[in-house]
Amino acid sequence: MLVVGSVAFDTIHNALGTHEKVVGGSATYASIAGSLFSDVQLVGVVGKDFPDATVAALREKGIDTGGLEVDASGDTFHWEGKYTDDLTARETLRTDLNVFANFQPKIPENFRKTPFVMLGNIAPALQISVLDQVEKPELVIADTMNFWIDGALDDLKELLKRVDVLVINEEEARQLSGQHHLIHVSAELLKMGPQTLIIKQGEYGAWLFVGDEVFSAPAFLLEAKDPTGAGDSFAGGLLGYLASKGEVTPENLKSAVIHGSAVASFCVEGVGPERLLKLTKEELAERVAQFRKITDFAQG
Amino acid sequence: MLVVGSVAFDTIHNALGTHEKVVGGSATYASIAGSLFSDVQLVGVVGKDFPDATVAALREKGIDTGGLEVDASGDTFHWEGKYTDDLTARETLRTDLNVFANFQPKIPENFRKTPFVMLGNIAPALQISVLDQVEKPELVIADTMNFWIDGALDDLKELLKRVDVLVINEEEARQLSGQHHLIHVSAELLKMGPQTLIIKQGEYGAWLFVGDEVFSAPAFLLEAKDPTGAGDSFAGGLLGYLASKGEVTPENLKSAVIHGSAVASFCVEGVGPERLLKLTKEELAERVAQFRKITDFAQG
Repeated sequence: MLVVGSVAFDTIHNALGTHEKVVGGSATYASIAGSLFSDVQLVGVVGKDFPDATVAALREKGIDTGGLEVDASGDTFHWEGKYTDDLTARETLRTDLNVFANFQPKIPENFRKTPFVMLGNIAPALQISVLDQVEKPELVIADTMNFWIDGALDDLKELLKRVDVLVINEEEARQLSGQHHLIHVSAELLKMGPQTLIIKQGEYGAWLFVGDEVFSAPAFLLEAKDPTGAGDSFAGGLLGYLASKGEVTPENLKSAVIHGSAVASFCVEGVGPERLLKLTKEELAERVAQFRKITDFAQG
Repeated sequence: MLVVGSVAFDTIHNALGTHEKVVGGSATYASIAGSLFSDVQLVGVVGKDFPDATVAALREKGIDTGGLEVDASGDTFHWEGKYTDDLTARETLRTDLNVFANFQPKIPENFRKTPFVMLGNIAPALQISVLDQVEKPELVIADTMNFWIDGALDDLKELLKRVDVLVINEEEARQLSGQHHLIHVSAELLKMGPQTLIIKQGEYGAWLFVGDEVFSAPAFLLEAKDPTGAGDSFAGGLLGYLASKGEVTPENLKSAVIHGSAVASFCVEGVGPERLLKLTKEELAERVAQFRKITDFAQG
């Protein structure tokens, strides 16, 4: 699978304290999550301050960093934010785009036939430029956010015509569709292009809409430490699972949403990607079994 | 099963218009829901304005109205409220307690050995007085709300020591427990007495906590018309299902939460109890099968 997005440092303030310059970014989380299931090719940009050891750690996970450009003209994208104690909201304290401001994704020759493509949450025009560089993939999944709905709506609408799976937060899904009830929200968004829609509800789980089918993924109850990267881990895990199956069917999509949810549930157990980096396939399989257990009931 | 609670008229203002004096009340909704599964004994009070035809309609559902007191000194409890267009909030415009102000539940002799008891959302002191009048039931389920947490906390805590299943909204569960994370919320509430806790999350479904087990009931996506009575239908359907099974096991509780959710999903499809009154067992079984379908996935 191919992952294109941001690679960053995050300085995170939460109830546990201040965590300076934790490695982050949508492409980082999605790649680590995807690597649990599949080979991963990463495309992004970092600055002169990005440690070789971190790149080596990604490589150890089976992530091909051949598309990770090092722009020596500046520093790596740096985000700083503060979470409320209940982790349901966050405030951005600082955004230094640095070298990310000039990011133009360049897909290496040997990444262009990769069948499963994740367009992390970057400008829709850049997401489109990725699709212009690759041969028609089997599946394209894209993430977006209110910033692009507000500021790049035309580009986003162009992008959606070329995307198979849209992953979006509930509030942003309402904003983009102009609808409230999820039945209407999903109908509107599916008209915009994607055949599959995943609406993330944070601590309430996620909904999958594919054709006439609807699927509900439960939340997993745990005491989260840090939600940074949860959405990207979800999408990366989801795509990695599909890549490992090879075939995109409604049944595989349902399981993919659960596997993505399971990966994300581990992500929030640590600050930054620390828990994800240690996650084993056995732990993941056990959690997927727990997702099954918490939703299983006798019909009679 | 025995249901004790309010019987009322509701005047409901919503996007569809104004609905004057629709029959309502916690005991009414819970009894109708319970009657889909079990014999129901109803205890409540109405005033001189309550139509005989409505009592007859309840009797036709197999509800024993022998405990429905008619207090000729005044009118029936009347609530008037307005829902926001998205139905996520409501404002109370008027509350005329009328004869309900003097309600003292009197459990008829032939209702006192009933094994499954639902204490609808009334003053905790009255809920306790019901338990003082009955022989130890096999299962007592109680509903409560912020009004009693604010105004009758000591009574509520006394009540909880004698309750098997507490059904409560997420926000009120946080208020009563003083905790935020559902893991801590549930731990605190289960310490207060009940062996089983059900936290309702409205459009996000419900959680069941029983012993070490946790179970997630999904929401059912539909375009709701009127959420009045949804919580009472949920609890009534849940208890009716358990009464029909006879045995209270974690497995039966899980299925009961789904059956209660299914009944509630029909309730909101009509204004007042109109949809519930027409609901058939076949329709209900089909919806339970849909609840299964929207959560079912392959683990591998």
